[in-house]
Amino acid sequence: FSSKLPDVGTSIFSVMTQLAQEHGAINLAQGFPDFDPPANLTEALVRHAAAIGQQQYAPMPGLLRLRELISQKTAALYHVSAPNPATDITITSGATEGLYAVLAATVRPGDEVLVLEPAYDLYGPAIRLQGGTPVYVPLLFPSFRPDWDRVAASLTPRTRLVLLNTPHNPSGAVLTTQDFDTLAGLLENTDTLVLSDEVYEHLVFDGQAHRSVLQHPALAERAFVLSSFGKTYHATGWKVGYCIAPALLTAEVRRVHQFLTFSVSTPTQHALADVLAHADHYRELPAFYQQKRDLFVDLLRGTGFELLPAAGAYFLLARYAALAPHESDTEFAHRLTREAGVAVVPVSAFYHDGRDEGLVRFCFAKKAETLQEATARLHAFS
Amino acid sequence: FSSKLPDVGTSIFSVMTQLAQEHGAINLAQGFPDFDPPANLTEALVRHAAAIGQQQYAPMPGLLRLRELISQKTAALYHVSAPNPATDITITSGATEGLYAVLAATVRPGDEVLVLEPAYDLYGPAIRLQGGTPVYVPLLFPSFRPDWDRVAASLTPRTRLVLLNTPHNPSGAVLTTQDFDTLAGLLENTDTLVLSDEVYEHLVFDGQAHRSVLQHPALAERAFVLSSFGKTYHATGWKVGYCIAPALLTAEVRRVHQFLTFSVSTPTQHALADVLAHADHYRELPAFYQQKRDLFVDLLRGTGFELLPAAGAYFLLARYAALAPHESDTEFAHRLTREAGVAVVPVSAFYHDGRDEGLVRFCFAKKAETLQEATARLHAFS
Ligand SMILES: CSCCC(=O)C(=O)O
Ligand SMILES: CSCCC(=O)C(=O)O
Repeated sequence: FSSKLPDVGTSIFSVMTQLAQEHGAINLAQGFPDFDPPANLTEALVRHAAAIGQQQYAPMPGLLRLRELISQKTAALYHVSAPNPATDITITSGATEGLYAVLAATVRPGDEVLVLEPAYDLYGPAIRLQGGTPVYVPLLFPSFRPDWDRVAASLTPRTRLVLLNTPHNPSGAVLTTQDFDTLAGLLENTDTLVLSDEVYEHLVFDGQAHRSVLQHPALAERAFVLSSFGKTYHATGWKVGYCIAPALLTAEVRRVHQFLTFSVSTPTQHALADVLAHADHYRELPAFYQQKRDLFVDLLRGTGFELLPAAGAYFLLARYAALAPHESDTEFAHRLTREAGVAVVPVSAFYHDGRDEGLVRFCFAKKAETLQEATARLHAFS
Repeated sequence: FSSKLPDVGTSIFSVMTQLAQEHGAINLAQGFPDFDPPANLTEALVRHAAAIGQQQYAPMPGLLRLRELISQKTAALYHVSAPNPATDITITSGATEGLYAVLAATVRPGDEVLVLEPAYDLYGPAIRLQGGTPVYVPLLFPSFRPDWDRVAASLTPRTRLVLLNTPHNPSGAVLTTQDFDTLAGLLENTDTLVLSDEVYEHLVFDGQAHRSVLQHPALAERAFVLSSFGKTYHATGWKVGYCIAPALLTAEVRRVHQFLTFSVSTPTQHALADVLAHADHYRELPAFYQQKRDLFVDLLRGTGFELLPAAGAYFLLARYAALAPHESDTEFAHRLTREAGVAVVPVSAFYHDGRDEGLVRFCFAKKAETLQEATARLHAFS
């Protein structure tokens, strides 16, 4: 049997997590918090886990109550008109399923999908599984801002989708209204769609605000916007996300979603709805994570790592040239895991051609004591 | 924007559930129990929902403990050598995701996939989304047994997969060792694979035993076998299933699964593992559901519905010719929902060409009082 993805191995996140476990390393590789969701959320799941009559299939697009609350939250947060819960919002098995469903619903063999690199490792293979061709456009280095001239030059009549990711994984860079204006100008009079992966929407620091594609009418009318309860509620293991898109586009997502997973855990959706109903948890997130970022930056001083600035998300990129000038990022990441006991992700894993900029990615979504212990190990190593 | 699945509407199960709700009808259409999971299972989810350090991503292939228990159960139940938890078992977001992942991992544009009809409504669209061609072979009518000569005549060098479903939805028919022998003979010296949807594995009645493809070495070596905790534990809303396949085939499923949903709810997997660890719940299922089937058959007497025999699964097919000789099954199903207050599925929805045999499907996975009330309504209607 010959593989459809012969060159695709196990996701870098699984690989590094496994390696961390083998070596007893602190896992700053895979992006997940090492602390728990807010107590009101886990208590809500406790309530709904044994609730009578609530353990069967949820409606295919998600619980209506949850979609209504998402609609209200979206309107309040982004000062936009509320997406219609009936027609514009779909609950998915994590943002991952949302992403895959959008690609499966829109990309045909021969279509091109524009991907700004470095990029999350699922984009390329998921596009190729639809028979599409990922067209990679590098972000400017080291700002990780889009080079709109190169984007413009890469658009063709076959460009079905442009993938955006803001705040950006792995760099934390955020897109601006001006970026959206530029892209909207490029896409005017085309039928190219936009998929905006905004799972880190609540993690933007230093007083900046996340700009959502939903706030840009000319883009929003052709966009699928993805979000993730896992990221927002420190519950990556719950696997619930959602996709907001105009009714006609949502109809296509649901056509696929109903055959991909059909529906999402009912008790989990109830729990999330309870918490979304009366909580501004997400308003505290920027300060909460900024403190972690700043602590980590502070603790890392003197280790020889040179951190790049990060405006958002829960990652920091670091140059390790002072520590290992001649080592590839993959070799270095593996050695750091083994010898320092701290696992990181080599940034080359985010490039389709393995481009190596001498960077590794740290996830700082960790308890203060974890960040302290990890940086102590890095001091000992350097 | 032109749809990739222009002829595919909302799944019949969502449509009929919605219609049932609008008309206050008892929902015997969508297949789900109207009773709750065993208390030890919901209690286990209560325990794990708030467990510290258990709310982040599960390993991509599933919790190892759960895979180990599935392996042991499979070996004990089917008297086969235990599938290797490390390489042969993948936990999926319901059997639905497992099915989709297998198709996405194996079917290339131009490939053919053999589907025995009537068939679950996701098979065809999910095959087409891979660029594959579903080749439909009707089951014999009204036995719903495979016509192996027609299967043989439909196999070509492009046949990538043969889809099996035993016990069969919607008819309840079960495959035999002889069926497997015949198919194995047909597939010898081909590289055609088998996908066996066995989500109703524990629902086989009248003293018969489910035969799993796993018990047939010549098929098992080329097969993906799907199962569903939702069906086995009356928890269709939890969305956890699994796929058992030889290591090389499992590797391909996981390549896709990691990009489709990545992983499945961590607390839910822990809960299922707790229960699988020390429970023979599934051994009681045949008697439990057979009693429901027999009750329903009994109560339906005199309503004018003529039931076909069902060896397994939790559905019964019924001819309604005595009640409405000239009505299409879809018209009749809608009218029954509106006028009798009992929702059913028209069996034409299981045929790609809408073939109408004058049958509707009842789901009998319901409390005795629900079956009583539904049949009382059907008596009043007829
Ligand atoms: C699904 S595991 C990867 C988690 C993540 O988003 C990351 O580490 O970038
Ligand atoms: C996923 S909803 C359909 C449930 C089911 O298996 C059926 O009704 O046949």
